[in-house]
Amino acid sequence: MIPNENYKNLKDSYLFYNISCKINDYLAAHKGARLYRMGIGDVSLPLCDAVIKALHEAVDDQSKKEKFHGYMPECGDPELRRTISEYYRSRNTDISADEVFVSSGASDELGDIMDIFGNYKTAMIMEPAYPAYVDANIMTGNEIIRLSAGKENGFLPMPNEIPDGRTADIIYICSPNNPTGAVFTREQLKSWVDYANKIDAVIIFDAAYEAFIEDDTLPHSIFEIEGTRDCAIEICSLSKTAGFTGTRCGYTVIPRTLYRGGMNMHDMWVRNRTTKTNGVSYIIQKGAAAVFTPEGQEQIHKNIDVYKKNAAMLTEAFDKLGIWYCGGKNAPYIWLKCPNDMGSWEFFDYLLEKIQVIGTPGAGFGSCGEGYFRFSTFGSPDDTREAAKRILELFSK
Amino acid sequence: MIPNENYKNLKDSYLFYNISCKINDYLAAHKGARLYRMGIGDVSLPLCDAVIKALHEAVDDQSKKEKFHGYMPECGDPELRRTISEYYRSRNTDISADEVFVSSGASDELGDIMDIFGNYKTAMIMEPAYPAYVDANIMTGNEIIRLSAGKENGFLPMPNEIPDGRTADIIYICSPNNPTGAVFTREQLKSWVDYANKIDAVIIFDAAYEAFIEDDTLPHSIFEIEGTRDCAIEICSLSKTAGFTGTRCGYTVIPRTLYRGGMNMHDMWVRNRTTKTNGVSYIIQKGAAAVFTPEGQEQIHKNIDVYKKNAAMLTEAFDKLGIWYCGGKNAPYIWLKCPNDMGSWEFFDYLLEKIQVIGTPGAGFGSCGEGYFRFSTFGSPDDTREAAKRILELFSK
Repeated sequence: MIPNENYKNLKDSYLFYNISCKINDYLAAHKGARLYRMGIGDVSLPLCDAVIKALHEAVDDQSKKEKFHGYMPECGDPELRRTISEYYRSRNTDISADEVFVSSGASDELGDIMDIFGNYKTAMIMEPAYPAYVDANIMTGNEIIRLSAGKENGFLPMPNEIPDGRTADIIYICSPNNPTGAVFTREQLKSWVDYANKIDAVIIFDAAYEAFIEDDTLPHSIFEIEGTRDCAIEICSLSKTAGFTGTRCGYTVIPRTLYRGGMNMHDMWVRNRTTKTNGVSYIIQKGAAAVFTPEGQEQIHKNIDVYKKNAAMLTEAFDKLGIWYCGGKNAPYIWLKCPNDMGSWEFFDYLLEKIQVIGTPGAGFGSCGEGYFRFSTFGSPDDTREAAKRILELFSK
Repeated sequence: MIPNENYKNLKDSYLFYNISCKINDYLAAHKGARLYRMGIGDVSLPLCDAVIKALHEAVDDQSKKEKFHGYMPECGDPELRRTISEYYRSRNTDISADEVFVSSGASDELGDIMDIFGNYKTAMIMEPAYPAYVDANIMTGNEIIRLSAGKENGFLPMPNEIPDGRTADIIYICSPNNPTGAVFTREQLKSWVDYANKIDAVIIFDAAYEAFIEDDTLPHSIFEIEGTRDCAIEICSLSKTAGFTGTRCGYTVIPRTLYRGGMNMHDMWVRNRTTKTNGVSYIIQKGAAAVFTPEGQEQIHKNIDVYKKNAAMLTEAFDKLGIWYCGGKNAPYIWLKCPNDMGSWEFFDYLLEKIQVIGTPGAGFGSCGEGYFRFSTFGSPDDTREAAKRILELFSK
């Protein structure tokens, strides 16, 4: 028996491994050194009170015979699905409860969703990209078309930049983007939707960072764009919105009107879920529901504001220094051009050695990320303030 | 774009849908009737105190900045992996911590694991079978060889019964079995292990009901059998062991020594998990760890004893009536031959109409289940006692 040979085509990702080696080497040579970690993609603030209260109540339910919950509906608790559909409606987007699927998070869903597409498709991935997009497609034997983003298009590539004659079955769009923090406008997304409909592709829209959008003109969801109910799947997460990176819950929207090749992809996903899962934990779904209460929304936005203030401290320093960047305003990531034409890893080493600030080399997100660098705004405010101060001092010299 | 066309080959399963229609019709015609539900595969007892305490503590951790947990290791909390490896060691089975993968449950894992096998393989499935085995294989384009079990082989088919010339890449074994409750002996499993090694197949061993084994001579794990480290993956669940059907946690064992076609399937699964998940919820993993403490083990076995007493009430009635059955002793299911040569659905209707007892027609688990019937022992003791009494009265007439 020969297992899935597509795995032989995977390349090892050394990005975070290399970073940790370099940090360990530095700490070995500089015992007790204080580091300012601006690279981390994880959140640092705990869950908000409304979520904690709901989680405790749900645990109590599981302790009592008359309130105990066994198997949950595979596609999600109907009440939570309704709540999330109302969250969409609050932004004038008409998504019905049965078009919302509760998931264990976006990364799980980005992997699992491949199953309804089948094998040996062509996927278009805008780079720099979240590395798991690429790997999940290699595992399934898909061909990958890489669409390079750069400073010249504000890291927002458009359909007219696609090389002649290349077409795709699946188009990945992440907006607000990880790692660049760039956000597509309505008009830009409309071009992508029109293009997808024209070439019969399906867009997988990763909206994990939608809650960071503060500019009212920018779309939170691809379903705010006309024509999308026939061509898109949206994958969302509470990881960054509500600090669920370690608690795990997200949601996916597949319109009932999404057909390809005469097959209804919404119904295919229902069939997938009812076969391949027994649903998300009752306890976690109760915690997730609390995120969407008025109290929960107020509390999570207080946390998001902390991260936004972190972003402002860093972008203020970059503005003063005349360093080019995108993101940081409607996104939790800042993507900057390394000063003095440094390479991504060269800049990493320089920051670590000189001012003990750690970020993520852009080259780790695809070759067009070379010469760029990602800062996360999820760290502690004190560390971020100190990092911004040190960067300002270092490059003002 | 044409999605996964294998989905067109799926057949709708009407088993539980038909059951609920028949129940609804009965209740509409008999307002307020009291039903005795012996069909349900879900547990009825709440989580034990040790687990509840651990879940509350973990929720508290998520509320405090200094104890908050973000992203978990994708393959599971190292401490929980070590704990589960010690659970194996307590039965003299040598499984290292890094061979244990924490999952969201067996049904999730049975679906996800297909990815490392790739498409268009041949899977051997013993019927009657858990329907998801069949559907997950159809979705991936696999050919299915059905190996019929029956009264004559005690619902435990052996390799020498395989039709001439048929061979498989994957062999599913569920022991203790759902739906039949039959359990393979060590000698029988050894024959399957030898056969799998001979034909280069991998066994997927579903051990979801291992905690119900009370006969010390029966194997809890396929890794108790010599030669298995080269040919098996074991998928376990806390759903029935500890009442986690709605709380969701399980574990999978893939030996580091499992190679096929020169590829290391353990390492492939590590790569799959690090790409396609961000791990199981911190809170849920803390609850799962409490299952393996001495206190947790004592408490879950008290619950299992309740279900075992249910089993005894039913089998005592069947013994008195001379009804053939298997299971019920080392398994939470009882599989019986319908009395008076009734068909599965005929027997269902008869029990519902005459004594308001509900079970699951065996025909729903594959055509060789026709004429058989499954009783679950997960219901309430009072209902089970009454159901057993009514069955005894009905067939003593």
